Amino acid sequence: MDLMTIAGLVLGTGAVYYVLSSGGILGILFNVNAAVLVFGGVIGATLITYPWRLIKRLPGCASLILFPPRFSENNEIIEVFENVAKKARKDGISQSLLDDIPPDSFFLRAISLLIDGFDGDFIKETLFNEISCFKRRHAQISDIFKSMGAYAPIFGLLGTLIGVVQVLRNLSDPASMGVSMAIAITTTFYGIFSTNFIFLPVAGKLSVLTERESLIKQLIVEGTTSLQKGEIPSVVRKRLQSFLADSEKNSKK
Amino acid sequence: MDLMTIAGLVLGTGAVYYVLSSGGILGILFNVNAAVLVFGGVIGATLITYPWRLIKRLPGCASLILFPPRFSENNEIIEVFENVAKKARKDGISQSLLDDIPPDSFFLRAISLLIDGFDGDFIKETLFNEISCFKRRHAQISDIFKSMGAYAPIFGLLGTLIGVVQVLRNLSDPASMGVSMAIAITTTFYGIFSTNFIFLPVAGKLSVLTERESLIKQLIVEGTTSLQKGEIPSVVRKRLQSFLADSEKNSKK
Amino acid sequence: MDLMTIAGLVLGTGAVYYVLSSGGILGILFNVNAAVLVFGGVIGATLITYPWRLIKRLPGCASLILFPPRFSENNEIIEVFENVAKKARKDGISQSLLDDIPPDSFFLRAISLLIDGFDGDFIKETLFNEISCFKRRHAQISDIFKSMGAYAPIFGLLGTLIGVVQVLRNLSDPASMGVSMAIAITTTFYGIFSTNFIFLPVAGKLSVLTERESLIKQLIVEGTTSLQKGEIPSVVRKRLQSFLADSEKNSKK
Amino acid sequence: MDLMTIAGLVLGTGAVYYVLSSGGILGILFNVNAAVLVFGGVIGATLITYPWRLIKRLPGCASLILFPPRFSENNEIIEVFENVAKKARKDGISQSLLDDIPPDSFFLRAISLLIDGFDGDFIKETLFNEISCFKRRHAQISDIFKSMGAYAPIFGLLGTLIGVVQVLRNLSDPASMGVSMAIAITTTFYGIFSTNFIFLPVAGKLSVLTERESLIKQLIVEGTTSLQKGEIPSVVRKRLQSFLADSEKNSKK
Amino acid sequence: MDLMTIAGLVLGTGAVYYVLSSGGILGILFNVNAAVLVFGGVIGATLITYPWRLIKRLPGCASLILFPPRFSENNEIIEVFENVAKKARKDGISQSLLDDIPPDSFFLRAISLLIDGFDGDFIKETLFNEISCFKRRHAQISDIFKSMGAYAPIFGLLGTLIGVVQVLRNLSDPASMGVSMAIAITTTFYGIFSTNFIFLPVAGKLSVLTERESLIKQLIVEGTTSLQKGEIPSVVRKRLQSFLADSEKNSKK
Repeated sequence: MDLMTIAGLVLGTGAVYYVLSSGGILGILFNVNAAVLVFGGVIGATLITYPWRLIKRLPGCASLILFPPRFSENNEIIEVFENVAKKARKDGISQSLLDDIPPDSFFLRAISLLIDGFDGDFIKETLFNEISCFKRRHAQISDIFKSMGAYAPIFGLLGTLIGVVQVLRNLSDPASMGVSMAIAITTTFYGIFSTNFIFLPVAGKLSVLTERESLIKQLIVEGTTSLQKGEIPSVVRKRLQSFLADSEKNSKK
Repeated sequence: MDLMTIAGLVLGTGAVYYVLSSGGILGILFNVNAAVLVFGGVIGATLITYPWRLIKRLPGCASLILFPPRFSENNEIIEVFENVAKKARKDGISQSLLDDIPPDSFFLRAISLLIDGFDGDFIKETLFNEISCFKRRHAQISDIFKSMGAYAPIFGLLGTLIGVVQVLRNLSDPASMGVSMAIAITTTFYGIFSTNFIFLPVAGKLSVLTERESLIKQLIVEGTTSLQKGEIPSVVRKRLQSFLADSEKNSKK
Repeated sequence: MDLMTIAGLVLGTGAVYYVLSSGGILGILFNVNAAVLVFGGVIGATLITYPWRLIKRLPGCASLILFPPRFSENNEIIEVFENVAKKARKDGISQSLLDDIPPDSFFLRAISLLIDGFDGDFIKETLFNEISCFKRRHAQISDIFKSMGAYAPIFGLLGTLIGVVQVLRNLSDPASMGVSMAIAITTTFYGIFSTNFIFLPVAGKLSVLTERESLIKQLIVEGTTSLQKGEIPSVVRKRLQSFLADSEKNSKK
Repeated sequence: MDLMTIAGLVLGTGAVYYVLSSGGILGILFNVNAAVLVFGGVIGATLITYPWRLIKRLPGCASLILFPPRFSENNEIIEVFENVAKKARKDGISQSLLDDIPPDSFFLRAISLLIDGFDGDFIKETLFNEISCFKRRHAQISDIFKSMGAYAPIFGLLGTLIGVVQVLRNLSDPASMGVSMAIAITTTFYGIFSTNFIFLPVAGKLSVLTERESLIKQLIVEGTTSLQKGEIPSVVRKRLQSFLADSEKNSKK
Repeated sequence: MDLMTIAGLVLGTGAVYYVLSSGGILGILFNVNAAVLVFGGVIGATLITYPWRLIKRLPGCASLILFPPRFSENNEIIEVFENVAKKARKDGISQSLLDDIPPDSFFLRAISLLIDGFDGDFIKETLFNEISCFKRRHAQISDIFKSMGAYAPIFGLLGTLIGVVQVLRNLSDPASMGVSMAIAITTTFYGIFSTNFIFLPVAGKLSVLTERESLIKQLIVEGTTSLQKGEIPSVVRKRLQSFLADSEKNSKK
């Protein structure tokens, strides 16, 4: 569970709540019409834009924000490759190398290609292809959240326009005008708030997670091709460490 | 028929309808002047920007939103290639390979190049060229919808400006002012609504469909060049599976 | 003459004219001050931004919108190459090949390189260089129109600001306020209208024309290098057809 | 001296001057507070964003707008290369080739590399590296002007906000309200005007000049490598002419 | 300590302070509610968007703005490489080369690879990989500041919307309306001010620093591979000088 995400949510909504309540207008947080318009509109436009095949994966992806996947540390992976390289030098490349691999399907697939004796080009091509397809699929999901973040404030504006028309119809009654106007503004409030606290942050965090995972996958590809060339353990480590920041490099050895 | 698109349309317009009718201002949905200005302006600007050769294809493309083309599943294509590879191993590369190919013109063309005995480079170059030209053509169409989506709110704004001028001419008559202003806002409403429920979603979905089709075409190219190199069926499958997500990979075998 | 461009212009200005005249405010279409500010500003900023060398080509380029150049059909070019390939097979590569080439300077230059006996790399490099320089030059022109489209609404806004200041100076006289305000809005109207009916559509259409011409040039390069390699006519055709959409492919043979 | 830039400046400021004076509000052009806020803000933000090393070069670069460097014509350079190629064919590659080169440091450096007998790859790599570093350095300067163009209207808006607050403090005195509001708007006027008449045009023109200079440098690299390969003068000319538009090509020979 | 950054901060805040105090509304600079909303919102949204692993590095990175790292001058590095090349020519490549290297971990790593006798491809690949990973890591940090700069004005707008609602609730009391409105505008003021004086300049300067550091690293890679090929000192210098501007080139020798 990502506690900082929770902290961010609490801090952000808390700030809004505090300001609203200190102004005595907490009520604008709850308006059925505004919610129907903004969220109905966003969901509707999203359903038209994207195929169901992608949309049905949104809830699962959104939950990654709260429960991010556990990635191996970069240093752990380098460790594994160094050990595998030592073993391979001693015993040759055999099925037993798989015993040292963490239970990651991409990692296992990479080492399997090595064990099956494919040549370096095939391994590199196949695995880089996996990475680029993986990135493309994830980018599609994060694009959907970005689209939702673009639709929401516009439906908020649409609601405000509708509210303004309503206000203009009752110009003769200034008292009710204020109330109508307040409601009108609520939709824009909903649109902006949901974009900046839900849609864009989710899209952003998914991109960061994808970036992270793709770096790990790149490490695995680089390590596997290094093994395939039969490089010695210390060279394998050197090659992989070029992906790390200086601070990480020094963290061991 | 894409039911989710229908659901999206119903949900979106329903939300707007509900909010308008609960405010008693359903009338703003129907305004001849606003429609003339926004849609006349958008169509006019589009006719100037794009050649007729492209514009005449818009209705057909827009209808793909409701009736998307049936694509083969990725796994089906891998299946086909595995079978073709087995057959080619047994009987050699001959005309009879075409019997197993689904009736897709690109697929048939790829296998024909193989049967005609062209070398790998020619096949790869020709087919990748087809894909990049195909993507460029589709991007042009989806760009037109994006342009329409950019023009519409601006013509809406133009209408609102005109309305404001009208209002300012009758400052002495506050009663009619509200009505004129309401009409003025209708054009912005039309502009925003059409952009967010028609133009941008259509452009977005066309891009997604193109992306999907281009992935399938890439699978076909990769499979054909793999056949051309005479790789064994299990390697063909391995090579193609690198395009799939893990969930799809496990779906068979 | 591009009739659809005319239709677009008529439709767009007609829509604006209709809406203005039905509101009885056709007068705002004509305002000297607004025209001086918006068009003076746009032309001034453009003269500062771009060198005269490029600006003097704008009128010629803008007229391409109404009188687009006649491009050869893709199929015609493939036809020509097939014929040339047949002739070259029969009679060898000689000066007489030029007889079958349409009077296009790029096409003639490409075939001349072939006849002069340059090797494939030199031909490919030189011609692709021509294409990329050609694209860069055209992109510069279309960028100027895009800049004008970006400047116009801002000078419109500047005019509106000036108008608002004028209005605020005469707050005591509400009658004249409406009139001044109406004039103030005219500049924004000019800015938006000229951007969306002149500058952006012209920039867009120039891009589309460039795209079209560059595809034709690419066809010519591909055909010429195919001839240089001595490929047989049916292969030349196959290679070139990979640039076409399926519908064009079937249009002959 | 670039007369068209002067014409642009005169035309643009003239248009604004005319409109302001015909409205009797020339006074808003001069407001100390607005100038302090907008230009103080822009300069401050720029000093924070960019290192002094780059900022101190801004005045020199800005003056290029009025006094653009004299570039050789493309055709002159081709001429030079053709002559050098003839001389090199007759007398071999020797120090004397430098006599025909115009006094441009990049040109001299390129020919020196040739005379020093470096191989083609070294020459190409070194010179292309010079071009890409040169482009990157110039892009940095033009980015600074773009940033200033982005900051200016926002500081204008900040000033307007401050003005609005001031106005709201004196709601009881409508007479002074108009004046304060007019001042408030002046800052936005300053922000927009300086962006569209100074910052963006300067950034734009610097990009165009860089583009022009980099094309000339590319011509020089291409010509030098052509000489290095020992190509005959007419081929050198052909190779270089592929960079020119058709109109330039025909201008000689 | 970067004095120009301090000057920028003083100039910018001084300009705002001067304008506010000359308008007698310095008070709007201090408003607890506005600060809670804008900064609470920005920090909250940032915590949701980015992982803690990146966020905890922000303060350190932001301080680089005031205390930028001391980079070697480009000419110093070329100097070092020329000396090392001379030494290597005389004594061969040995551990003693490290004595002349400045204490930069990347520089030492590069020369160590050379001394360890790795081949040119390995050195180039590993070091370029370091550079691209280094750039990617730095771009992530500068992206966070850009995101904060995008969130801040929107939370400012949110505050203004809330303020407007509050105002509309008290339409009957015009006196308090001005005060509420003034507060409402403060949040937008905070949002714009923090974006343009903190978030965007920090993001911009981090990018410039990264660019600078990456150029130095490129120089080091180029120099190391040049040494590995055994090029003579004057060629090493020539190769590296192609990265410099003409003015820097002439600064020595």
